[in-house]
Amino acid sequence: MSSILMELTRPPSVVQPREPASVADRIAASAAATAGRMTTGAFHDWFAGRGKAGRFSVERIPFSKLRGWSFEPDTGNLVHASGRFFSVEGLHVTADDGPHREWYQPIIKQPEVGILGILVKEFDGVLHFLMQAKMEPGNRNLLQLSPTVQATRSNYTKVHKGTDVKYIQYFTGPERGRVLADVLQSEHGSWFFHKSNRNMIVEVDGDVPLDEDFCWLTLGQLNELLHHDNLVNMDSRTVLACLPAYRPEPPAGDGFAHALARSRDPQAGALLTDVDLLSWFTSERSRYDVRAERIPLAEVPGWTRDEARIGKDDGRWFDVVAVEVQAGNREVTSWTQPLIEPSSRGIAAFLTRSFGGVLHVLANAKVEGGFLDTVELAPTVQASPDNFAGIPVRPPFLDLVLSAAPDRIRYDAVHSEEGGRFLYAENRYLVIEADESEAPMLPPAGYQWVTVGQLSELVKHGHYVNVQARTLLACLNAMSPTTDAAGPDSLGTRSHD
Amino acid sequence: MSSILMELTRPPSVVQPREPASVADRIAASAAATAGRMTTGAFHDWFAGRGKAGRFSVERIPFSKLRGWSFEPDTGNLVHASGRFFSVEGLHVTADDGPHREWYQPIIKQPEVGILGILVKEFDGVLHFLMQAKMEPGNRNLLQLSPTVQATRSNYTKVHKGTDVKYIQYFTGPERGRVLADVLQSEHGSWFFHKSNRNMIVEVDGDVPLDEDFCWLTLGQLNELLHHDNLVNMDSRTVLACLPAYRPEPPAGDGFAHALARSRDPQAGALLTDVDLLSWFTSERSRYDVRAERIPLAEVPGWTRDEARIGKDDGRWFDVVAVEVQAGNREVTSWTQPLIEPSSRGIAAFLTRSFGGVLHVLANAKVEGGFLDTVELAPTVQASPDNFAGIPVRPPFLDLVLSAAPDRIRYDAVHSEEGGRFLYAENRYLVIEADESEAPMLPPAGYQWVTVGQLSELVKHGHYVNVQARTLLACLNAMSPTTDAAGPDSLGTRSHD
Repeated sequence: MSSILMELTRPPSVVQPREPASVADRIAASAAATAGRMTTGAFHDWFAGRGKAGRFSVERIPFSKLRGWSFEPDTGNLVHASGRFFSVEGLHVTADDGPHREWYQPIIKQPEVGILGILVKEFDGVLHFLMQAKMEPGNRNLLQLSPTVQATRSNYTKVHKGTDVKYIQYFTGPERGRVLADVLQSEHGSWFFHKSNRNMIVEVDGDVPLDEDFCWLTLGQLNELLHHDNLVNMDSRTVLACLPAYRPEPPAGDGFAHALARSRDPQAGALLTDVDLLSWFTSERSRYDVRAERIPLAEVPGWTRDEARIGKDDGRWFDVVAVEVQAGNREVTSWTQPLIEPSSRGIAAFLTRSFGGVLHVLANAKVEGGFLDTVELAPTVQASPDNFAGIPVRPPFLDLVLSAAPDRIRYDAVHSEEGGRFLYAENRYLVIEADESEAPMLPPAGYQWVTVGQLSELVKHGHYVNVQARTLLACLNAMSPTTDAAGPDSLGTRSHD
Repeated sequence: MSSILMELTRPPSVVQPREPASVADRIAASAAATAGRMTTGAFHDWFAGRGKAGRFSVERIPFSKLRGWSFEPDTGNLVHASGRFFSVEGLHVTADDGPHREWYQPIIKQPEVGILGILVKEFDGVLHFLMQAKMEPGNRNLLQLSPTVQATRSNYTKVHKGTDVKYIQYFTGPERGRVLADVLQSEHGSWFFHKSNRNMIVEVDGDVPLDEDFCWLTLGQLNELLHHDNLVNMDSRTVLACLPAYRPEPPAGDGFAHALARSRDPQAGALLTDVDLLSWFTSERSRYDVRAERIPLAEVPGWTRDEARIGKDDGRWFDVVAVEVQAGNREVTSWTQPLIEPSSRGIAAFLTRSFGGVLHVLANAKVEGGFLDTVELAPTVQASPDNFAGIPVRPPFLDLVLSAAPDRIRYDAVHSEEGGRFLYAENRYLVIEADESEAPMLPPAGYQWVTVGQLSELVKHGHYVNVQARTLLACLNAMSPTTDAAGPDSLGTRSHD
């Protein structure tokens, strides 16, 4: 019986507190647990084993070898014969303000709402998260750690006639567990038109059968794994970002870890009150008159299609390509599909400052053509440096991030974006300490200082925090005082190209 | 200097509480004040005087007499020569679920974000609200009480070369006051495509010059005026609905007024936790695959244009008409414009139940073709009964509302919708007590019980609560224990046709 049904069949005189107090404490306890049903070492062995068990290959193919996919004669749109899954169409964006006033681009249209869900359950009094070792064609290393459920509507309504989606019954329908988070969040607005997915975290009490591709991990273990490159996939990161805010005990002493812990405490205060932050966001959303109109893919100027890719004539931004996938542990065993392949690796970085002993990150109200509503909060820097090679006007703060001294870099890992739609789409995620000369307390127009707790409050609702900033929020939450208080060297910092 | 600038020029060590505690208490004190700078009797005299002072006439004209407006040859869309203001276009909506799966209709496209703002200021320690006596062509009685500022972007950027918008400097720019609320809210999704306006409440300390069309009222006075028909306009109601929740002292005894006071108290609990409520909303938004595509107005089937109106062939829903306006107290003194004229008066009603001594209203997750995102929370009943005459399938709860016994009706007033776009668009707003046999605790799919406090929390963000439900929220807040505790007879209840 679902939690809502349970509530509603209680005696009519019983109402409950609107915010149950115990959830945050139980999440904090799981974050403090560095081992659970298996040690992290055993996890790595298990994960490597799953990689060997899965037969999976990805091969680039020309568009002519796509099965079920074709270019519509009238529009040039790349569509599936079923009319489902997704299509690649054109987009024309105009804005009356901001650095980019007009552009054209291909874009993925996938109006269905999918479910990204993590199942949680207590073992020995500690919350564990059910994670999946999942191959996806766009991942450079193929196998990554994904949520319990990662299903498009086509998936779980079985348009492609594959097997059932495992564990889906805990997220929808009468067997659904207790909801800890359930919110529609946007995905990459530069590559998707109006895409959102349902991010869910659901708790159950009863026995849960454990499939061989799945494992139970504590939040402390997940936080440790978030310091590895290309291990925790995008879908896991965005769902973890939706965890209710929990308040770790601030570590002794002062400094970065202390300010970070206070930044997650709703009682610690902030530079802006919540209502001033919402007001600033509203003014940013009202400031732009952005019009994004879908157009036929064939009519996107400056982009050319050859037999194997649709690309921008100057080689920047991204290509649309096609692949054939052979798989042994997915719903169906062979398929072809288009993917978006970025031309280079991106940067997604939050600059941070401590004000009054509370860490703040510098968020950017960013226009992306595919957003449902104009702007969302993005990292301070979200850009692929190669796209700006030879261009005199640089994105604000990009050069500061690229030249940051190692002892200022508090988090540094490369993560993959959605491997089901993007090929080798990687971003280097960074959290970097800045000072007043680099990132002033009165920031430039379009930027604002927010605490981690304020970001956590905003992600309870959709269309505030974009997917790259949600990854960074998950990473900031992963930098727990227990694991990261020892200093920069323990924070996952290491050199990247 | 704006509040944000003031915050940011304080010493860097100073952070502030994210939620200042005093605001709710000051709003509660203003709600308890039944007289302020003027008595309510003096207000009525002043308001009648403003009606006599204003020269204002509205005349229906054929479309051919519109100046600056014309039907585009290719599309039949009704547009302004400047490309600004708004246009009337066509809409084609399909949904894969719900009572209505496909329809066509004309719709207003007005992508600009306007500002609806109320300025507040303390006099003798009591917050007063600066309200405007404003003529609008679509109001049956022409003059209504509007917010301090009610300005489209065209208005305040002076596309029509009229006078400046009075008091706009307190809402935007460097002189802006302290923000109490600032949120983008949707407007009528049946008549507007993706329309939202910025709802703002801003407080200032300094002297504010008082223009002859403006007056200062306490919240207690505004709440009393909300019990009158066609007096407080839609723009005022939606802004008042965005006031931060305040907690009146529950009156002695039990019953409706007591349950209503507890419903506004965040500590009183609710049938659903906040996270379960958000989850239910997310599931409703995910349940529908709604596609709303703009089409040329000339291609809307079942609607016919003659020289003076565009109407549905069966006479239901609404017409598009044209008027000429002569005015002496607006930005320009004469203009012509299209308006939408509904075919009959609507009903907007919340059914209420008390669970555990806490009042709950029955919200409906409703699809409207013009919503930016699928569904928003609407009143239990939102329908024009005449549209369903002779149709066997009736909207749920409509007949219950129409046949409610007088002693169950706790609020009842007729209010006008936006008089700048709609002609004689009136809704009868009702709050009605129901019992388990009429409105069960386990409601039908698409409906859910929420407290007034939960609605107030949701309206901090856009696209949750539709404009009719926001009017009812303002009305529920207007039913304060001090004025309404005496019983049904003092609750503004009276008979309507």
